[in-house]
Amino acid sequence: MRIAQDSKDLPGKWYNIIPDLDFDIPLPMGSSGYPLSYHDLEPVASSALIDQELERNIQEVSIPREVAAIYSDWRPTPLYRAEKLEQSLGTPAHIFYKYEGVSPSGGHEMNTAVPQAYYATLDEGVKRLVTATANGEWGISLAIACNYFGIQCKIYMVRSSYDQKVHGRYAMEMLGAEVVPSPSDKTGAGKKILSQDSNSPGSLGIALSEAFEEARSRDDTKFSWGTVMNHVLLHQTVIGLEARLQLRRADAKPDIIISSVGGGSAFGGLIFPFYKERDQEIKMIAVETAAAPSLSNGRYAYDYGDAEGLSPLLKMYTLGHSFVPPGIRAGGLRYHGISPLISALYREKQIEARSYTQRQVIAAATDFARAEGMIPSPECSYAVRAVLDEALDCKQKKKSKNIFFLMDASSNFDLAAFRDFVDEVVEDQPSLDKEVQTALSQLPEVPAH
Amino acid sequence: MRIAQDSKDLPGKWYNIIPDLDFDIPLPMGSSGYPLSYHDLEPVASSALIDQELERNIQEVSIPREVAAIYSDWRPTPLYRAEKLEQSLGTPAHIFYKYEGVSPSGGHEMNTAVPQAYYATLDEGVKRLVTATANGEWGISLAIACNYFGIQCKIYMVRSSYDQKVHGRYAMEMLGAEVVPSPSDKTGAGKKILSQDSNSPGSLGIALSEAFEEARSRDDTKFSWGTVMNHVLLHQTVIGLEARLQLRRADAKPDIIISSVGGGSAFGGLIFPFYKERDQEIKMIAVETAAAPSLSNGRYAYDYGDAEGLSPLLKMYTLGHSFVPPGIRAGGLRYHGISPLISALYREKQIEARSYTQRQVIAAATDFARAEGMIPSPECSYAVRAVLDEALDCKQKKKSKNIFFLMDASSNFDLAAFRDFVDEVVEDQPSLDKEVQTALSQLPEVPAH
Repeated sequence: MRIAQDSKDLPGKWYNIIPDLDFDIPLPMGSSGYPLSYHDLEPVASSALIDQELERNIQEVSIPREVAAIYSDWRPTPLYRAEKLEQSLGTPAHIFYKYEGVSPSGGHEMNTAVPQAYYATLDEGVKRLVTATANGEWGISLAIACNYFGIQCKIYMVRSSYDQKVHGRYAMEMLGAEVVPSPSDKTGAGKKILSQDSNSPGSLGIALSEAFEEARSRDDTKFSWGTVMNHVLLHQTVIGLEARLQLRRADAKPDIIISSVGGGSAFGGLIFPFYKERDQEIKMIAVETAAAPSLSNGRYAYDYGDAEGLSPLLKMYTLGHSFVPPGIRAGGLRYHGISPLISALYREKQIEARSYTQRQVIAAATDFARAEGMIPSPECSYAVRAVLDEALDCKQKKKSKNIFFLMDASSNFDLAAFRDFVDEVVEDQPSLDKEVQTALSQLPEVPAH
Repeated sequence: MRIAQDSKDLPGKWYNIIPDLDFDIPLPMGSSGYPLSYHDLEPVASSALIDQELERNIQEVSIPREVAAIYSDWRPTPLYRAEKLEQSLGTPAHIFYKYEGVSPSGGHEMNTAVPQAYYATLDEGVKRLVTATANGEWGISLAIACNYFGIQCKIYMVRSSYDQKVHGRYAMEMLGAEVVPSPSDKTGAGKKILSQDSNSPGSLGIALSEAFEEARSRDDTKFSWGTVMNHVLLHQTVIGLEARLQLRRADAKPDIIISSVGGGSAFGGLIFPFYKERDQEIKMIAVETAAAPSLSNGRYAYDYGDAEGLSPLLKMYTLGHSFVPPGIRAGGLRYHGISPLISALYREKQIEARSYTQRQVIAAATDFARAEGMIPSPECSYAVRAVLDEALDCKQKKKSKNIFFLMDASSNFDLAAFRDFVDEVVEDQPSLDKEVQTALSQLPEVPAH
């Protein structure tokens, strides 16, 4: 059941959580061990985005008129109450979810792609954005946004996805983006990997290294992050800001808020506005894949965002930048680290983390699809598993709670995943302890000052 | 740019166009040459749907409360003005489109799947619906709707799609539907085909024959049509009824209305409410694929809806029920006939028809996607080609017109089509004249009374 929607729920400002935290968010650092300044970041990032990344005092950032006009093409996104699911579970809990799948790309990534493309037009001489993508959800979003503002778009796509998940590649190319399989022989980082393994399937970390290198080497090109960074989470707060108003209208204060986490941008955008205004305890659960359990099994340390150490060092829960997660359907959750903001909240015990294997999420996703008539994306299925666990816990304890979660994308862009659900062919990976230990032993040594 | 949406735009009644026509709509007929009665149709169809199919006097049919509650999960669907496309074309025309891709299945098919599943619950002893699907869009919609109402769902899926377009199959199975590749050895019709060609790739006509046969043979099972029939077009009028109110709010009277046509249900649902209320001439264009040009190249005659002659005879523009359209990406447009209502309107010169080849629609779909940030489905790309032609005609004549078209689905469920767009690997079929002549020579002979 859709909660009544009102175009006035679209906020005029994004919410920067940092001033409201009573602990520090460590700054990005260079390998020299000094915090990076505006000027250090300038060669790769748009100036407005650097300001947003480093901002520690201003709580609200106005959404530019040009961005708001595009947001309003699909925002506010709908909020649903999953009554049919509640009934099928026989739970006294009330389950709500916000659905970001109505965006032009079918996912929440549009929320940051649009402002990033817009801000690129404000920097003199900038004509191109370069980024990295795995399955293509982020690349498609950035390609669409670049078209809106007449910016060129170059995308390094993980080679195994480029070869297998061809729909993502073709969609980006149809949208006019230049798509290069990574590792490529176009960059030093790519050549280095290929010299070690000419058949390398690539990884998001490698693709990020190639994109960084290109952004550094060209004055007309800036790098674009799809997740992890503060400014990306800032843009994603439109999700939580809208949801807060929508839930208020439904007279439902959330007791539990749940989202899957890959880099952490959807989760952050969802919970920050609730974190600020909570007048009661809210359990906030970040759900990871057991194939890349950064919060659950990682170390809180400065590490690189990419495989080759070209990105800034970020203080985050990480499995080590050399860790390559096993192949799972939920490609959006395959990343070695997690947003510094989410990492700090976890460090301070403000949020909880939980991880599931692929096999554990299959039944939950199927239950949800049959009750609600909407098939969750592979990534969102992890959140759905946690939602069902919490709802069944309410049933057992005969206690009603408001459970609110994020459906961050439509399922449509990763249909091959359905085969796993139906045939239950999923093999859960064996323990990753050894791989994680190896990668953690390769964390960069950062000089102390 | 989205035109402001208002939940009040969702109509309370569907619109039956037949009483407003000043010409007759021929009734479905048996092979004996007599019009079919309620009782003739009862073995295969739900009683409420038979009433709606045969209704010739009542203009409005109330949407049941149970159906309206589900419609409101995604309806009213958004209406957009394609300003960025107008600018890129440099046309004085104003281009509007209604987007049905926000439904749970991603397409307009949900509009009739929901009432069909609901009405099945009203007939005593009915527990199952059986249908036929090509790529799966219709089957997914019906599977979702059946879950809402606790009805079982059985789907005969064209074997070539079952093998190749596996995402559709897996989605239906994840939703709990039973999916059988057609031709199967489960029905007489299927066995007959297999005895002639054990490797038959199947066709929608064959799958329909199998589904009919099953519905006839089981008391607990009714057949469900995805398009063609009057009652399906009736349900689809929610599209046009909403659009009329939305365009009025935008102060835009449409001069030209455009939609792709396969069986004709989306087109009919779009134009009927405008047909009734027009106080000026509106050019209404049905856009076909040149691979199945029923209106442009077919004959107006009684013909079967399925391959084996198990369905009622319908008076329609048809290429002959034995005609098998060549394989094209827009599987939803591959059908030998077209709705009797649309056929009659065309016969009476109330609407226009136009056909394009695959190659002709590729550039148009790409132009649209890059300007508007939304990739049209393969089916909708045919309409987009006509929209661009009309908009460029306005440019040449320096005349502003309001062009309104239907984006009847999200593109996401047929992503392989992108490859054709990007690589331009599409080979347009040679002339189909010979195949059409052969099929037309096999039209049923209907006794005159």
